[in-house]
Amino acid sequence: MSIPAAIEALTSLLGQRLSLSKSDLALHGRSESYFPETLPDAVAYPETTQEVSELVKICAAQDCPVIGWGAGTSLEGHGLAVRGGVVVDFTRMDKVLGIRPEDQDVTVQPGITREALNTELRATGLFFPVDPGANATIGGMAATRASGTTAVRYGTMRDNVLGLEAVLADGTIINTGTRARKSAAGYDLTALLVGSEGTLALITALTLRLHGQPEAVSSGVCAFDRIEDAVSAVQETIQMGIPMARIEFVDAATAVAFNAYADATLPECPHLMIEFQGSEAGVAEQSERFGEIVADHGGKGFAWSTKEEDRRKLWAMRHNGYYAILASRPGCKAVVTDICVPISRLAEAVEATIADIDASPIPGPILGHVGDGNFHAILMVDPDSPDELAEAKRLSHVMVERALDLGGTATGEHGVGMGKLDYMPREHGAAWQVMGALKSAMDPKNILNPGKMVPQGN
Amino acid sequence: MSIPAAIEALTSLLGQRLSLSKSDLALHGRSESYFPETLPDAVAYPETTQEVSELVKICAAQDCPVIGWGAGTSLEGHGLAVRGGVVVDFTRMDKVLGIRPEDQDVTVQPGITREALNTELRATGLFFPVDPGANATIGGMAATRASGTTAVRYGTMRDNVLGLEAVLADGTIINTGTRARKSAAGYDLTALLVGSEGTLALITALTLRLHGQPEAVSSGVCAFDRIEDAVSAVQETIQMGIPMARIEFVDAATAVAFNAYADATLPECPHLMIEFQGSEAGVAEQSERFGEIVADHGGKGFAWSTKEEDRRKLWAMRHNGYYAILASRPGCKAVVTDICVPISRLAEAVEATIADIDASPIPGPILGHVGDGNFHAILMVDPDSPDELAEAKRLSHVMVERALDLGGTATGEHGVGMGKLDYMPREHGAAWQVMGALKSAMDPKNILNPGKMVPQGN
Repeated sequence: MSIPAAIEALTSLLGQRLSLSKSDLALHGRSESYFPETLPDAVAYPETTQEVSELVKICAAQDCPVIGWGAGTSLEGHGLAVRGGVVVDFTRMDKVLGIRPEDQDVTVQPGITREALNTELRATGLFFPVDPGANATIGGMAATRASGTTAVRYGTMRDNVLGLEAVLADGTIINTGTRARKSAAGYDLTALLVGSEGTLALITALTLRLHGQPEAVSSGVCAFDRIEDAVSAVQETIQMGIPMARIEFVDAATAVAFNAYADATLPECPHLMIEFQGSEAGVAEQSERFGEIVADHGGKGFAWSTKEEDRRKLWAMRHNGYYAILASRPGCKAVVTDICVPISRLAEAVEATIADIDASPIPGPILGHVGDGNFHAILMVDPDSPDELAEAKRLSHVMVERALDLGGTATGEHGVGMGKLDYMPREHGAAWQVMGALKSAMDPKNILNPGKMVPQGN
Repeated sequence: MSIPAAIEALTSLLGQRLSLSKSDLALHGRSESYFPETLPDAVAYPETTQEVSELVKICAAQDCPVIGWGAGTSLEGHGLAVRGGVVVDFTRMDKVLGIRPEDQDVTVQPGITREALNTELRATGLFFPVDPGANATIGGMAATRASGTTAVRYGTMRDNVLGLEAVLADGTIINTGTRARKSAAGYDLTALLVGSEGTLALITALTLRLHGQPEAVSSGVCAFDRIEDAVSAVQETIQMGIPMARIEFVDAATAVAFNAYADATLPECPHLMIEFQGSEAGVAEQSERFGEIVADHGGKGFAWSTKEEDRRKLWAMRHNGYYAILASRPGCKAVVTDICVPISRLAEAVEATIADIDASPIPGPILGHVGDGNFHAILMVDPDSPDELAEAKRLSHVMVERALDLGGTATGEHGVGMGKLDYMPREHGAAWQVMGALKSAMDPKNILNPGKMVPQGN
């Protein structure tokens, strides 16, 4: 039993679609953040669920690791083949299998990206709302329980996946969930697989909940002198039940990066970016009420607009935030934090984070999904400086420990991967052993993305 | 190893709070629907999580079944001790452990009922929205993944439980989830336990998502000649993105039962009952637009009101629906169906169900949560007539098979219990074996609510 034997059998199965080329291995051995290159032994490009099943059977027989791969936009090294093996690239499984507008759902293959999906949906009047910024694949977004700017209104992947088709560690193909909007029939295997990061099964199809394109959308931006004022304005908006579709926070350092990268002219201070969706009258009312709340909390310069051009510019700036920040230190790599805390603790978490970063030589602009209590510090390091990387990891460690102290989580949306594995024992306590037991039950040979998620050893 | 030995040890642990009285056993051996009395060997009344842990350790050592019990309002026999053992009644664990209004969350013990919780919350301006009708316990609602009239707006228990404390089959106490609004840290054990019907762990505390009490609420009712018109009015309302807080369907037979039980004067035809929640201007706009849609689909008599008195009367009538229907055939027991189908198939599912019932001697009024595609037929049988029970079960079987043919589920919200266990293989296929593997991993001695949920045998 060996990886070379698996590769030989996979070559028979997939022919040219099993790649051993150096460039392919390199492309699937890299990460969008600071993790070192970690090459797999081969990259497979299956085209059908049946092929994925056959592939997994071969790998199971040979004890060969199998690691799923979407768009490669993970920031935590989810797809790195840390024990070698075969990376399964789902790029060729990118079809829409069925759109049912009257049920507001769609079934897709895992390799379709969220932008491609929304392009396909355009004519139906529906859209898929989960929006992590990067043009990730839907399969990758499900595997990592992604969310992003719209989670405050539409929820995360947890809330928007109705059902899955998946291949188990022995090659069995299962279906979870139904096309009904809800069910009380048995264990929620859909929710168990969403966020399991390819360690329990490989997702080969997804049925997603869609939403009607809103009749009207309003958006706006406003500036604050103090972070705590921005956060308390958001808290009050939530408490008033005003339904925000997006509510994003950026700190002064991020505003500076936006100005340079997106040709913006934001004052160099903290900002909130807001969007409302609904009827024309609804978004007008909500925007006005939000404006009043902002003014009460010392916010400045709030103006709202329902023009698509204004909105597109605002959110393009936000979506390119990660790259705008990276561009502010050419050649850098990022250690990205992703803590999420109860809203009541958000202002203190952000302020303490900024104080930590100010006291450190590492630059780290902050931006986040303030309606969820989730924010990121983009800690920029010289990739050739072990000292800087160590300092960034120290900062990240302080932030995660603080989040856990505050009743929060090490990762709101980026997932565990390699970057947050060390925090699983503290965050979950005895429940981490349960995760290990579930992993052993579903993948007894530990071939699915080994080295991740659960207690290692034996 | 034996149940008597467990009872002896539990008596040492709990004293008077381990009951062997006949009336107590009978009270915990009955069901609200048609299942025959099934007595446990004892009823335990723990007061702390630590006691639950000790209790489970004793039962594990003696291979004694342990079955959780809330308010006993299950319609599917979830709490019946089909293999004997100890029923754990959580009545004495009914405290609110912490309300955090600024985070819109609350931590409670499992034995608190939803009405008691909302009474406790009243002064905070917040409420817990999940509303299955019956005054169930929160623990029971989580264990069965309950939902009800408000799921179309607020989701089910799946969507409103942020985290759990639970006792595993070996007595280990775990915590799942955090107080953050979202997390991507590891397997979603919260979602795995919600809906697991006490077969994987006993829930000993829950952190719940709360919502702001709406500024304004409007409600109304309207009549239709044809079911398909009522359903298509709902479909169009969903497609327009008009946010309904409740949208309930009742058929003509249910309207008749309401008239008799609730002193109402509904025309004897299908009806929709609607509620909107939001700002004064918002609910007015939504009610008006709904009224236009209803009129376009031939609906009659729609009038909306924001008066609390009108609303209270309407929803009291709906909430008492089950009892109103039972009262229409004195002395009867009910076989309750709970299918949920894609909305596009709802009208045909309801119409075919009514045709089946009309062709049968068994009366079966229908009502349901039409925004979710979920509806119930209350099949009323003479408890002393095996023929009637057999006929009701035949009808129920036809309905479930139809739901599965239409891409739906055997149970939208009532759960599996004893009543839907036989449908698990067809609904889940190979995934049912995965549920069995998870059960074996978490409860290897099969002491937690045995005889339910997963493949039986060995």
